[in-house]
Amino acid sequence: MSHSYDNSQPVNAGEQTPQQVQLGDHCRIEDGVYLATAYDVHKRPTTIGNCAAIRAGTNIYADVTIGDNLRTGHNAVIREGTTIGDDVLVGTNTVIDGQTTIGSRVSLQTNVYIPTNTTIGNDVFVGPAVTMTNDMYPIRKEFDLVGPTLEDGVSVGANATILPGVTVGKASFIAAGALVVEDVPPRTLALGVPATYRPLPESLQGGNQIA
Amino acid sequence: MSHSYDNSQPVNAGEQTPQQVQLGDHCRIEDGVYLATAYDVHKRPTTIGNCAAIRAGTNIYADVTIGDNLRTGHNAVIREGTTIGDDVLVGTNTVIDGQTTIGSRVSLQTNVYIPTNTTIGNDVFVGPAVTMTNDMYPIRKEFDLVGPTLEDGVSVGANATILPGVTVGKASFIAAGALVVEDVPPRTLALGVPATYRPLPESLQGGNQIA
Amino acid sequence: MSHSYDNSQPVNAGEQTPQQVQLGDHCRIEDGVYLATAYDVHKRPTTIGNCAAIRAGTNIYADVTIGDNLRTGHNAVIREGTTIGDDVLVGTNTVIDGQTTIGSRVSLQTNVYIPTNTTIGNDVFVGPAVTMTNDMYPIRKEFDLVGPTLEDGVSVGANATILPGVTVGKASFIAAGALVVEDVPPRTLALGVPATYRPLPESLQGGNQIA
Repeated sequence: MSHSYDNSQPVNAGEQTPQQVQLGDHCRIEDGVYLATAYDVHKRPTTIGNCAAIRAGTNIYADVTIGDNLRTGHNAVIREGTTIGDDVLVGTNTVIDGQTTIGSRVSLQTNVYIPTNTTIGNDVFVGPAVTMTNDMYPIRKEFDLVGPTLEDGVSVGANATILPGVTVGKASFIAAGALVVEDVPPRTLALGVPATYRPLPESLQGGNQIA
Repeated sequence: MSHSYDNSQPVNAGEQTPQQVQLGDHCRIEDGVYLATAYDVHKRPTTIGNCAAIRAGTNIYADVTIGDNLRTGHNAVIREGTTIGDDVLVGTNTVIDGQTTIGSRVSLQTNVYIPTNTTIGNDVFVGPAVTMTNDMYPIRKEFDLVGPTLEDGVSVGANATILPGVTVGKASFIAAGALVVEDVPPRTLALGVPATYRPLPESLQGGNQIA
Repeated sequence: MSHSYDNSQPVNAGEQTPQQVQLGDHCRIEDGVYLATAYDVHKRPTTIGNCAAIRAGTNIYADVTIGDNLRTGHNAVIREGTTIGDDVLVGTNTVIDGQTTIGSRVSLQTNVYIPTNTTIGNDVFVGPAVTMTNDMYPIRKEFDLVGPTLEDGVSVGANATILPGVTVGKASFIAAGALVVEDVPPRTLALGVPATYRPLPESLQGGNQIA
């Protein structure tokens, strides 16, 4: 079951560990940003590349590795065990709950929720309020927590919901408001509740790289 | 109508009232946490039990009573007139708008919205981005604000929406993305928009207690 | 494509510019509020009228103009190029991404997302977790970003999703959980995924002014 902080018994809650932060050059960190928030005794560093711009209120835990050109909104939370590539946007209020791998040139918009054990490739767009999950039977049945996998070039529309362990195939497009309950083949449009699938229309076949 | 802060004319906005906070033993309160935020002249205390772990940015108002072993995420807001039991998780960005009762062993995940006048029992799981409501006819018609009632053992899937005054019966399971528009009988699976009901499948009949 | 902060290269990230804030009388600003956050070299002022009550954690950028009696929740974000009228509530966690016009007597509840280039009239109610969008083909195809237009007297139910450029006609009511994919005529009830339309029922024909 996906209980935030279930296993994190912070020895020293609130202890920011500045010596544990490795920041690249030309970073701009606003007031009220927390880095290398401790989560257990074995505090691995927080490593962030060059040219990061991190907005006020954002909280990046220990044991997080991020490449160059990170941009965040406000009050984002990136928890331990997360690896992120280059040129990634983590939007306002977006929460990455940890133990997650995210590629390069990924745009996570506002209010996105990414549970533990999620995998996101390169050139992925995740719209505002997208909610991913990692527990099929919360409370009810044992389940190895696993979030979705979004392959390279995937786009997810606003306020969509994606069930645990679902793989969204390369370049596929999840429509706004969709509920995705099973794997999506590559180059597929998924829409509805629950989502049904059809080939990508021409308007959605364009470039799978974000600037 | 559910206007946040409609009746809260803070006499001294921003006045934290440390003398009004009663904290149990072994609590860990991070930086940037606000306790006993005043909301009117008659500031009743904020009472929190033992072993609370409250993350940075969380804001707990005056006139809130919480039991032992509270855990919060970041930037949660718990407003006045709320009573919470033991062993409760209030996730990141989750908002409890007040005048609400929540039992013990309840897990509120990230981005949950709980309006005023809501009742949540024991052993309840509320998934990320679940949105509850308390006003059937905002602006349009007088309506005594009343949030949902979630009975003991209920689980609510991610990004579900629950209408005002709906009662979700014991041990029922609201599927991710569902829109619940009327009472759910006990031991029922509700899914879809609007939700339809069927008996709980075997996979969802398991333990109704969270560790 | 709607990339938050895509064009905002803050010259001095985190530079609060107090000399750039014009506040009316009788305002109550809590701790941890950021005003006139700079977003580029040409920092226009933040202008807020009388009797504003701004809660802890809220962030209002430079080049924002707001009338009298603003109330905010916590951790709201109001970005540059936004104009807001009188008697407006901006709820907790609500994000207005900028280049947006909002009228008077508007209630934006908790967790609302308003993208750039959105227009909201007077006497509008937007329920919790409503997500609006401004990019039909993120990444895939060029698209002039345009958010929805909500005309006077509109109400939007909780957790609804509204597609780019959609106009919601006067006094219309979007039901909770709806996905609105095309223009809504005036005095219409829209419900479902995707939303279908019917005339407003009597219960929803009442007063289009909020107190």
